[in-house]
Amino acid sequence: MIWGMYPKDLLTLIASFQKLPGVGKKTAERFAFQVIDWPKEDLEGFAKVVGEIQENLAHCERCGCLMDATACSFCANERRQKSKLCIVATAREVYAIEETGIFHGLYHVLGSLLSPLDGMTTEDLHLDRLYGRLEEVDEVIIALDATLEGDATALFLKEELGRRGKEVTRLAFGLPMGSSLDYVDASTLTHAFSYRTPIS
Amino acid sequence: MIWGMYPKDLLTLIASFQKLPGVGKKTAERFAFQVIDWPKEDLEGFAKVVGEIQENLAHCERCGCLMDATACSFCANERRQKSKLCIVATAREVYAIEETGIFHGLYHVLGSLLSPLDGMTTEDLHLDRLYGRLEEVDEVIIALDATLEGDATALFLKEELGRRGKEVTRLAFGLPMGSSLDYVDASTLTHAFSYRTPIS
Repeated sequence: MIWGMYPKDLLTLIASFQKLPGVGKKTAERFAFQVIDWPKEDLEGFAKVVGEIQENLAHCERCGCLMDATACSFCANERRQKSKLCIVATAREVYAIEETGIFHGLYHVLGSLLSPLDGMTTEDLHLDRLYGRLEEVDEVIIALDATLEGDATALFLKEELGRRGKEVTRLAFGLPMGSSLDYVDASTLTHAFSYRTPIS
Repeated sequence: MIWGMYPKDLLTLIASFQKLPGVGKKTAERFAFQVIDWPKEDLEGFAKVVGEIQENLAHCERCGCLMDATACSFCANERRQKSKLCIVATAREVYAIEETGIFHGLYHVLGSLLSPLDGMTTEDLHLDRLYGRLEEVDEVIIALDATLEGDATALFLKEELGRRGKEVTRLAFGLPMGSSLDYVDASTLTHAFSYRTPIS
C-alpha cells in the first residue's frame, strides 16, 4: 500500500539504504527524506565516493588490509616490527587495534572464520597466503572474536602454526575495563577467575 | 589519530554517512566497511539514485508534497475530496497519514513550524500559498507535532483560518493505542483524562 505511494526514485533510494547493516524500513525512510534536502554538493560528493569506492580502495594482496591505489600502509612501512604478526578476521579490526597504539607489528586478515554450519571451512581461510609470510615471524598473535567460530579458528591456527615452530598467543579474556560484576556474564566471570593475575 | 589511518576515500565515505540523521562515527564506519563489499551493481545503483534524486523528485508548487517529474499524485487526483485540507509540517508526514487510509482530502505542507527561538516566524510558513487554495475548503485539519512549536503553529493557524470562516480541527491527543498507563507521561495522561469520551 504505502510503498506504492512514494515516487519511484524515492523507493529506489529507500531500498538502497535498507541494504546497510541494521537499517530497517523506518530508518531508511528517515535517511531518504533527509538526503533529498541535502545541499547539491553534498549529494554529488556522496554519489561520487559511493560509485568510485571499489576503484579507489583495494585489499593488500599480501596482508589483506585496506589500501588506497598506491601501497599498503602496513606492508610498505619499514618501521613496523616484522617479527610480530597479528591475525584478525576482517580489515576493520585492524583499525580498532591501531587506535590503541599498543601493537607495532604486521597484520594478517583472514577474511572469515571457521564455521562449518555456514559452510566456512579451512579452505576459506586461504592459509597458503599466511604460511607464505611466516619466515621473519617469531610470534603470531591471534586477535579473533571470543565466539564459537573465533575459538574454533584460533585452536586450528594454534595447531598449524605451532607445528611450524611459531609462538602462538591469543588476546586475554576477562572483565571489560569499567564493567560492574553485576552485569558480567557467567562465562566471562569464569574466565576472569581462572586467569586471575597477581596484583603487582 | 585513527582517522589518519584510514585510506582517504574511506574517510570521505564515512564523512558522507555521518551526515545522515542519527548516524555517528561508529555507525558510519560500519556502513562504510559494509558498502565496500557490496556487489558492483548495488553500489552503482546507489550512487546513481543519490546523484539524481534531486532531479527526479520535486515538491509540488501547490501543496508541497513530493512528486516525480510528471505530476503531483494528490493535486492531480480528481477523486480526492477538495473540501478537506490537512496541514502537515513536512512532506514525510503525508505518507504516514496516507498509510492509515482514513483521509481522502488534500494536503498542505507548511515546510516548517513557528519557532521564534530558531528564527522561524510566520513568514517562513509561506501562508499566501495556503490562503490561495482555501476557496473550495470547508474544514482544515491541523496534523502538527504535539510539541511547543506544533502547538504555537496550530493556535496561530486556527486564528488566521477561523477569521477566514473555515472550520479548523486538530488531531486528538490521548493514550497511544496499545500503551500501558505505567509508561504514559503525565501530560498525555492529563489530556486523556480531560478529553475522555463516553463508551459507546
